[in-house]
Formats: sequence, C-alpha cells, structure tokens
Amino acid sequence: MISSESVWGDVEKIRANAPLVHNITNYVVMNSTANALLAIGASPVMAHAIEEVAEMTNIAGALVINIGTLSAPWIASMEKAMRTAKERGIPIVLDPVGAGATGLRTETTQRLLDAAGPSIIRGNASEIMALYSSSAGTKGVDSLAESHAAVDAAKFLAKEYGCAVSISGEVDYILSEKGLVAVANGHPMMPKVTGMGCTATAVTGAFAAVNPSPLLAAAHAMAVMGVCGEIAAAEAPGPGSLQLKFLDALYSLKKQDMDKRLRIKD
Amino acid sequence: MISSESVWGDVEKIRANAPLVHNITNYVVMNSTANALLAIGASPVMAHAIEEVAEMTNIAGALVINIGTLSAPWIASMEKAMRTAKERGIPIVLDPVGAGATGLRTETTQRLLDAAGPSIIRGNASEIMALYSSSAGTKGVDSLAESHAAVDAAKFLAKEYGCAVSISGEVDYILSEKGLVAVANGHPMMPKVTGMGCTATAVTGAFAAVNPSPLLAAAHAMAVMGVCGEIAAAEAPGPGSLQLKFLDALYSLKKQDMDKRLRIKD
Amino acid sequence: MISSESVWGDVEKIRANAPLVHNITNYVVMNSTANALLAIGASPVMAHAIEEVAEMTNIAGALVINIGTLSAPWIASMEKAMRTAKERGIPIVLDPVGAGATGLRTETTQRLLDAAGPSIIRGNASEIMALYSSSAGTKGVDSLAESHAAVDAAKFLAKEYGCAVSISGEVDYILSEKGLVAVANGHPMMPKVTGMGCTATAVTGAFAAVNPSPLLAAAHAMAVMGVCGEIAAAEAPGPGSLQLKFLDALYSLKKQDMDKRLRIKD
Repeated sequence: MISSESVWGDVEKIRANAPLVHNITNYVVMNSTANALLAIGASPVMAHAIEEVAEMTNIAGALVINIGTLSAPWIASMEKAMRTAKERGIPIVLDPVGAGATGLRTETTQRLLDAAGPSIIRGNASEIMALYSSSAGTKGVDSLAESHAAVDAAKFLAKEYGCAVSISGEVDYILSEKGLVAVANGHPMMPKVTGMGCTATAVTGAFAAVNPSPLLAAAHAMAVMGVCGEIAAAEAPGPGSLQLKFLDALYSLKKQDMDKRLRIKD
Repeated sequence: MISSESVWGDVEKIRANAPLVHNITNYVVMNSTANALLAIGASPVMAHAIEEVAEMTNIAGALVINIGTLSAPWIASMEKAMRTAKERGIPIVLDPVGAGATGLRTETTQRLLDAAGPSIIRGNASEIMALYSSSAGTKGVDSLAESHAAVDAAKFLAKEYGCAVSISGEVDYILSEKGLVAVANGHPMMPKVTGMGCTATAVTGAFAAVNPSPLLAAAHAMAVMGVCGEIAAAEAPGPGSLQLKFLDALYSLKKQDMDKRLRIKD
Repeated sequence: MISSESVWGDVEKIRANAPLVHNITNYVVMNSTANALLAIGASPVMAHAIEEVAEMTNIAGALVINIGTLSAPWIASMEKAMRTAKERGIPIVLDPVGAGATGLRTETTQRLLDAAGPSIIRGNASEIMALYSSSAGTKGVDSLAESHAAVDAAKFLAKEYGCAVSISGEVDYILSEKGLVAVANGHPMMPKVTGMGCTATAVTGAFAAVNPSPLLAAAHAMAVMGVCGEIAAAEAPGPGSLQLKFLDALYSLKKQDMDKRLRIKD
C-alpha cells in the first residue's frame, strides 16, 4: 500500500511547500518537535491562547494536538482549534499522551474526540487501548483479543471516528477502514529520547498537510521517523547524540535511504 | 560604525561581568536561549509570574520580552516588567514574534510599545513591517518602497519609539536615528534551527546590558550570532548538529574569529 | 559512607525497575531533565494540572518539585502533589530554584516546606542559605560561620525538616542528621549548561525512588552527575556538546567508570 516512492513523493511536497503546522502541544517537546518539523521542511508554529488559536489554525496546513502537559485553559484552546480545523477541512492529528494514566487525560481525549473528530489519532499501544475502553464504554480491554489488542482497539476507533489510527511500537501499525500498514523500521534507542512519539505526531502533521489520505500520510510519517531513527542510531553512542543526529537525518534524508531501508511488513 | 574591535570589547565585558538577563519569552526557546546566554558569558533568568517580575527585572542588567507563545497572564507580566525596566533605566529588547500573523500578536506588541518603549526592537522583515502598519495606522505596507520595505518600516519605528531596530535576514540591518549597520554574516542553515531569531534577541539583551548604545549593542549581537553561525555550520551536517556547535562556538569565540569573518556591508 | 559499589547498586536498580518520577518543574529544563531521567533508566512524567497531580503522584516512585518558573496555579498543584506524596510515603525532592532572589520564591519554598516536608532539599549554596534565613527567621546568614555557611545552613534545615540536604558546587555536600558526604567530582563547564542543577534534582528523584535512605540517594545521585559530567567534558569543546555527551554518558555509564573516577572527600 505504501512504497519508497509514495513516501518520497510526500517528502518532496513538504520540502517544496513548507506547510505551516499549528501545534498545541506539551511543554516538554515544543523545542524538539519544532526542530523536527523544520528539519523535514515544514513550518512549525506554536500558539495556545484562546484569543488567537482559531486565527492561527485558519492559516495552517495541519493542526497537531498533543495533551502531554494539560491544563484547563489549554483544553479549551485545543477544542476551539479543533472545531475551527474541522469546519475548514484542515487535517487534525491528535496525540492522547498518557490517556489511561489519569482521569483528566482520558476524559479530555474523549471530549476532544467528541468535539471534532481528528483525521489521525497517533499514540502508543496503551494509549490507544485506553481510548478504546473510554469510547466503547468498557472498563478495560478484556474484550479484545490479547495478541492484537492495540490493533483491534485501533480498528474500533478508526470506524467510530472515521479516522486513521497510528500506533507506534517495535513495529508501527497504521490503519483505517481502507487498510492496514505495518512499518518495521526504527531503533530500540529511540524511546530513550524524550518526546520521540510526540515528534512522530508532529511529523505526521506535516505529511497530513500534503497528502489527503490520512492513512497514507500517517504511514509515510512513521516510515520517515523509523528510517531516520535508524540512520541516526547507527552513529549515536547514546540518546543525547541520537536526538541531534535524528534531526540531521531528517534534514539530509535522500530517496536512496528510503529505497534501501524501508521495511513494510505484510 | 562597528568593527571587530568594538564587537570584541563587548564580548569581553559580558564574559567579565556575566550580566543578569531577565527573559519573559516563549516556551519553545527557553532552553536554547538560556544556553546561548550562558555560552556567551551572561547569566539568564526566566520568571513570568506577575508577583515577581518587577523584583526580578530590578536586579537585571537587561530585560528581554518575546511574545512567541502569548497568553493573557503573560501579557500582563510583560507589561509590568517593561514598566519597571523603563523606570529604572534598564534596557529592554522586544521581539514581536509572529506580529502580523494574528490580531493578538499585533495588538499585544502595540500595547507593549505604548506602555514602555524598548531600547531595541528585534524581528524579521515581516514582523517589522507588521509593526509599521500597526503603528502608522495603515492597513498594509503599500506606502513603503518595495525594495527596502523592512528598512523603511524600521526607520519609522526607530523614530516613533526612539529605539534601535534590528532586522534579521540574509543580511541583518540594524538602525536607529544615529545610523545604519548592515551585517552580512550568517549561514542559510540557521533558520532550520527553531528559535535562532529568539536566540538573537536574547543575545542582544546581553550586549544591551554592557553597551549603553542600543544601535551598537544590537549590531554587535548580530555580528556574534552570524559569525558563530558560520563557525558552527562549517562542521554541521544538519540543523541538529548546528544547534549544539553554535553553543560551542559562542563559548569558545576568539577575537581572531571576529577579525577574520566579520562582514560589514557599506 | 558511600562507595562505588553503593552507587552502582542503585544505578542497577534504576535500570532494572525504571521507576516513574513525577516532575512538576520549570519550563526551561523540562526537556533536558526528562532526557536525563530516560538516559539513567528511569521513566519521567510531567503533569501539573491541579485536576490530575494527585492521581499522577500516586502512581510515581518519587516526586520532584522545582520552582524555577513559578506561577500561582503551579504553586497550588505543587502543594497538592507534595501532600499526596507525604501521605503515601512517596519520597519528595524539592529544588528551591532562585530562593532568595524574589519574595515569591522564598515564600513559596517556605510554604511548600511547611505543607509537606520533603525527603531531600537540593539546591546551590545561596539557595540553601536563603532557606535558612527564611526558616530560622533571620534576615541574613550572618549567624553562620562564614567559611562553611551553606553547610551550617543545611544542617539547620536537615534538623528542622528531618530531611537530607544536597548542596551542589565545586564540591557537593550532602548531609542529614545521619552524616555528611562530600563528592568532589564534576567539571567547571557543567554550570555553562542551563539546568544542570535541575537535572541533578531530577536524577536525585530517580535514586530516591530506589533507595530508602534520603542521604544515600542524594549522595549517589551527585556522584553519578559528577562522574558523567567529567566523562562528557573530556570530549566536549563547549557546553552544547557537553549537554548531549552528558546524556550519552548517563546512558552508557559502567561500574568501572565509577570505580575509577569517584572522589569522596573526607
């Protein structure tokens, strides 16, 4: 469903068009996600004041919402920005960071999903399963087949909200009602850099700004994340080096890197 | 008007005196601007609570205001800190990040300019032109000669607010009613690091703390930014490496680097 | 009192158990302290909303409170999280950043100390002396022997609050009513990286999560900070490189590094 060529077509569009990606995200990762967006060729902007979020979203190519360091005024701004994006047909990528860990995070995610369904939900397996429990009204994930619990939860969410769901892990699963892609790129040192998942979400926003298919945009983003992570890790003695070499890799990524390294699982 | 010697004189003062620079800035760049201030030899402090900004500004050698991630409580604190600095003769550097992009940003900048005129306004060409439109009461920049629109807008602002204006770009233009300096240093990879402009603003604060001339302080700061950016870029395969090598360059900058690289345009 | 073996025992426990460290900290260092916690093997989480702090603290192995960029809503959340931790026996590490610089910081620290005494107070000499003045009700530190003013202030605080106190400096002094440890590791370039002290506080949280003795946890953390700083500085031409190599060093630290480098002062 995706190929080195399809990934690369989007990379070239991002580099040519430098789409504006409006981020309402957490304090921990603002610097690193802005740097990742710049390195891949997009134009990041961060703005969270209720007085300006609609205006900023209006001029953006994509809206990225990340609930990693929530508080009440930010939740109101997230909802307003998402409603604006939805009205204007601007793609929304939602990262439910820590859903399941506290009531506030699970409830906020549910509130945002109900206010304006995103194009893409992007999280790790436990976050996706927490959203399933919350959306399906169950107390747990017991109803899911254990071996593929996160993928089954994602299928439910994809149908319920008409969106793509992108699950990061050793293998990334990206699915919508139109299909499923499994990307087997990446490196075990990546989770040792804070906010690598949030970076994946922000980069997904850049791809969503140039590709009308949420499924393809999300899958292409995870392919680029994984391939650049591998390139960076090959020269990184630790996570400090990995973080900067990852940005260098996004910046200097070539089609040959994608040809050589992309690993799609059947 | 400026020379390698005049730049270096200020660098030595910063390293000797470690002036305290009080920053009320945006979330994205707090870490990187604090690191740049430390690397050049200044002492950064970040404090934004309305209860303490006046007290903190009072003990600072310069105040840096950056509106990159605004919200109502921060605007009130910015205004209070600026009034305090003005009363005490502490130099203020104002960075109108995103002025022109949203009403909130343009209006906030105007409100801050009216409350307590800064010593130095530092922005990119589009921000400076947005302030001109707002301050001159026009709807656009049509009244400006197209080829030098930002410089003409800066001249208006310099006269209106009795300050220096520093415009970053491929060539940096720094001007006040006392003259104009054009610095042709820098590297095209620098804008690929988030907050490089905000870092220029913070570093301008350090120079303003040791040099009573806003024009010279602003020009010296841009010279150091540009020269260090070149030194860093020479060894950086991408923007991740550039960011860290830039800090190393600020830290280990030598007078010979300035002698050899400084490019003032006539 | 501490040895290479005792330090290493805790490092192995952190790597094996990945304790969750809940941080309510300042905007400047959130990214770098999260990265340091990941690099040493812990699991960082940042959450500051009053609606969720108790729930998050409840599932944490340690709570780290850092007042570097205070505001009223954050103070309320810090107090709530500290009360929760105290009730549940979860160790609290408090970093009174800038105590003494403004009334807000000194008063907030005093308020937090009174609400729920921490296991460990970690600061620099001037912050510890400011807390002494505030807690002892004096206007200054004149009553302290000048040569050891910070250590004497720390002894007062350790007794008053029944905690360990960790003072960073060229030599780090860590003490409680049970004894005193002086760690002579570290490198003069470390203070040129913003938030190195805040990182020490966060890493102290990771050690407090695995070692029931506040004195030993704090001393072990400072030993690891100092040794990793030395390893990183040996290859760092400036503070930009130091920051990333420090994370690499935390990640790849070996017992032999500790055996070879640890310098405990008698």
